[in-house]
Amino acid sequence: MERPSREVIQENRDYTLFSWSVQSTSNPIHMTRAQGVWFWDGDGNKWLDLNAQLINMNVGHQHPKVLEAIKKQVDELCFAGPNFATEPRGRLGKKLAEVTGLAKSFFTLGGAEANENAMKIARLYTGRDKIITRYRSYHGATMGAMTASGDPRRWPVEPGIPGIVRVFDPYCYRCPFGKTVDSCGRECVSHIEEVIQLEGPHTIAAIMVEGITGSNGVLVPPDDYYPRLRALCDKYGILLITDEVMSGFGRTGKWLSTQHYGIKPDIVTCAKGLTSGYMPLGAVIVSAPIAEYFEKNMLWGGLTYSGHPVSCAAALANLEVYEEEQIFENTEIQGRYLAERLEAMRKYACVGDVRYKGLFSVIELVRNKATKEPLAPYNGTSPEMQRLAAYLKSKHIYVMTRFHMLWVCPPLVINREELKYGLDVIEEALAQVDQMLGMARAVAD
Amino acid sequence: MERPSREVIQENRDYTLFSWSVQSTSNPIHMTRAQGVWFWDGDGNKWLDLNAQLINMNVGHQHPKVLEAIKKQVDELCFAGPNFATEPRGRLGKKLAEVTGLAKSFFTLGGAEANENAMKIARLYTGRDKIITRYRSYHGATMGAMTASGDPRRWPVEPGIPGIVRVFDPYCYRCPFGKTVDSCGRECVSHIEEVIQLEGPHTIAAIMVEGITGSNGVLVPPDDYYPRLRALCDKYGILLITDEVMSGFGRTGKWLSTQHYGIKPDIVTCAKGLTSGYMPLGAVIVSAPIAEYFEKNMLWGGLTYSGHPVSCAAALANLEVYEEEQIFENTEIQGRYLAERLEAMRKYACVGDVRYKGLFSVIELVRNKATKEPLAPYNGTSPEMQRLAAYLKSKHIYVMTRFHMLWVCPPLVINREELKYGLDVIEEALAQVDQMLGMARAVAD
Repeated sequence: MERPSREVIQENRDYTLFSWSVQSTSNPIHMTRAQGVWFWDGDGNKWLDLNAQLINMNVGHQHPKVLEAIKKQVDELCFAGPNFATEPRGRLGKKLAEVTGLAKSFFTLGGAEANENAMKIARLYTGRDKIITRYRSYHGATMGAMTASGDPRRWPVEPGIPGIVRVFDPYCYRCPFGKTVDSCGRECVSHIEEVIQLEGPHTIAAIMVEGITGSNGVLVPPDDYYPRLRALCDKYGILLITDEVMSGFGRTGKWLSTQHYGIKPDIVTCAKGLTSGYMPLGAVIVSAPIAEYFEKNMLWGGLTYSGHPVSCAAALANLEVYEEEQIFENTEIQGRYLAERLEAMRKYACVGDVRYKGLFSVIELVRNKATKEPLAPYNGTSPEMQRLAAYLKSKHIYVMTRFHMLWVCPPLVINREELKYGLDVIEEALAQVDQMLGMARAVAD
Repeated sequence: MERPSREVIQENRDYTLFSWSVQSTSNPIHMTRAQGVWFWDGDGNKWLDLNAQLINMNVGHQHPKVLEAIKKQVDELCFAGPNFATEPRGRLGKKLAEVTGLAKSFFTLGGAEANENAMKIARLYTGRDKIITRYRSYHGATMGAMTASGDPRRWPVEPGIPGIVRVFDPYCYRCPFGKTVDSCGRECVSHIEEVIQLEGPHTIAAIMVEGITGSNGVLVPPDDYYPRLRALCDKYGILLITDEVMSGFGRTGKWLSTQHYGIKPDIVTCAKGLTSGYMPLGAVIVSAPIAEYFEKNMLWGGLTYSGHPVSCAAALANLEVYEEEQIFENTEIQGRYLAERLEAMRKYACVGDVRYKGLFSVIELVRNKATKEPLAPYNGTSPEMQRLAAYLKSKHIYVMTRFHMLWVCPPLVINREELKYGLDVIEEALAQVDQMLGMARAVAD
C-alpha cells in the first residue's frame, strides 16, 4: 500500500509548487508520520522538530485530544456558511474574549487574512487611511499584508497598497539609532512620534506590529517599549494592532506576548498557535468600542470559510490542552533552560547575539564579534550558514535558518531531555562554523 | 448537553463578527445538523439548501466518503509544513493536472489567496504589471483580490493595489454596448482589444475573469466569447487567468466552465467545489511553461497552510465522489430540468431574465419588463426583494438574494423531486412579488 518515498517526493515535485522556492532546488522531506516533538521521513529517519513546523505546532504533532475534537466535529457538522451560528464558533469567540480581554472575534483562515482584515477594520473604524508598520516585520503574503510587511519578500510585488508608513524596530543588538544600553533614550519609540507628527496624526489609523517580531529575528523589545507605544497611540487616538500570529498562544509563555508588558492592544491578530496548525484558522480580535461600532456600521469583510466549524472545534480543543496540560508553565520552565543554554553559546566566535522569550528564540550569527558583520548578508546566504543548516539536517534536527539567523522554537510540549539533545547538536554545528571562520582567518593571516 | 438555540445564537452574536454585515441586523440561523441537500436549525426546522451554502457544497452536506477521508488523514498525519512532501498533496496535484490539462498546483486556503497568487505569478512570469479584470466580478476580499474585483464590496477599501484595468462583461441582457442579439458584433471582446491597445500590450500581464461570473449574476457568455478572448490573449502574449472558484468543479457540469467552450486558460484558480467546503482549500493551477519558469526562478509566495494534508485528502475524496457517483451527469440532467423551469418563469411580470449553465443559475428581477428597471438598485435592496427573501425563508428554502437577483445553485447531488419542491416555492414567491407590483401599479393608475 505504502509507496516508496522517492515516488511520493517526485510526484510532489512534478505536480505541486513549493512556497518561497526556486522549484528545481526545493528538496522536500517526505513526512510519513509524527508524534509530539518528533516526525519521521520515508526512509525511517526520526527528526526532532525544533521549529514546530513553521512555529505553529505548539501542542506538538498528533495530539490525541485535538485529533478527537476534529473528528467529532466532522461527524456532527463539517461545514456551515459564515453567516450561520454554530456551537464551536460561539464557544471559541467567548474563550478568545476571556483570554485576551478583548470583545469579539472575526474568523479568517490564517495570519495574512487576519492582518488584511485588521487593517480594514482599523480604517473603517477610524476613518483614517495610513497604517504604521515596522521594517523588520512579516504580516503575510496577500497584497495588503505583504505591503504592511517590511520583509524582503515584499520587494518582488511592490508597489502594493497605498498608505503604509514604515518605522524602525526595537533591535537593540543593532540599534538603528546607534545607541547602547547606557545611551538609549528609547528612540525606537520616540522616532515613531516624530513620524506621526510628520505624517499627520489625523491621517493614521493604526500602528501594527508583531507582538514580538518573529521571522525577522525574535526582536524582544525593552520592557517599557509597549507601555510607551500604548501611550503614544492613546495620545493621538491611533489604534494599536498587535500581530500575535507567531508570538501569541503560549509561544512566550502567555496568551499574548504583550501580556508580559501589562498593556492591551485594540486589535489582536492570531493564527498558527490558535489551532497549533491542526486546522487552518486565523482571527482578528477587537476591543469593545470597535465591536460596538460595527453594531451599526457595515463590516466590509468576509470569506467563505469564516467560522469554519471544524477549525473552531480544533482551536477550542487546542486551547483546552494549553490549560489542562499546563503548557504555558512548561514553556516557562523549558524557556529558562533554553535561555541558560543560549547565553552559554555566546562563547562561540560566530554567536553575535541570542534573544529569547519563553520558547521563542533566535541565535544571530556573525563573522566577527567586534564589527558584528553578519554571517550572511541581508536577504542572502553564505557557505557558513549553508554548512550550519546542512549539519543540522544531517543529524535530523529540523530548524529554520534564514539570512544569518537560526531559530529555536520547538513545540511547547518539549521536555528537558529532548531540548538538551537538540541544543547539544546545535552546539556541534556552531563549533563547525567557528572552525570554518578560524580556518578563513588563518588563511587571511 | 445540547444548549438551547437561543443561547448559542446569542453567544455567536456576543463574541463573533459576521461577514459583510451590520452586526445588529445579522440574524444567524443556528445550524445543528445537515445531510445532502438539507440542513436543520435549532428549532428542528428542516431547510432545503438551494445555495449549497455559499455555492460550495457541491457533493452536499456530510457526505460519508469525504468525512471518512478527513478522519483517516487526521489520524495518519494532520499537519506538515508547506515545504514537506506528503502523500495527499502529490496525489491531488496529479489529479488536478489530469482534469484541467494544466501542469502544477500551488495550494492556498481559499479563492482570495488563490487569485492573489495567480496575479503574482502572472506578473513574475511575464515581467509586466497590469491585470485586466471585469467590472461585474468578485475575486475575494484580500487587498489584491478585492482590487481586482469590480463588485461594490471593493469601494470601502479603495484605492487598492495599482495596475488593475477594468473592462465590461458579456452581459447580454443589459449589453453595455447597447447591442441586441441581431446587432451584436461581440463588442464585449473587441472593446478589450481597444483597451489593450490604449494601455499598451507590453504592460499587461494577464486578463483575469471568472469562468462564469457568479455573485454578480451568472453572466453566461456567448459560445464564441472564450475562443475570441483566448485568441486576443495569444495575439498579445497576455496570460488568460480563469477564476473557477464558483463556476468550476462540476457547478456547470464540467471540471472547468471553460471546457464548455473548448479553450484552455494559462492559469486556473479554484476553491469552493475543490473540497465542497469540507476543508478550506484553494489552488492556483498553472500551465507547463509557467511551471517551467519557476524551476529556475523564485516563486515569491507562500503560506503556513499551503498543501495542508487534511485539506488535500478532503479534496481527493471529494473529486472521487464526483466521478464515482457521476455527479456531473446528474448536474447535466437536473440542470436541464432547472433550465426548463426557469424559462417557464419568464411568465412572471417580475422576471426580467433567467441565466443558467448546469446547476449554476440566477433569476434577474425587474420592476418593469419593458424598461428592465431592476427590482432593487445596484448595491441596494427594495421592499419587493425583501418580501421575496422573507417568503423563501419562512418556507425554509435557503437561497442567496442580492440586489435584484435570486440565485438557484443547489448541491449537485440534488434529485428531481427536491429541485421541483424548491422551484415550486420560488414560484410562489415570484407570484407574491407580481402581486406587489400589480398593487403598486393599481395605486399609481
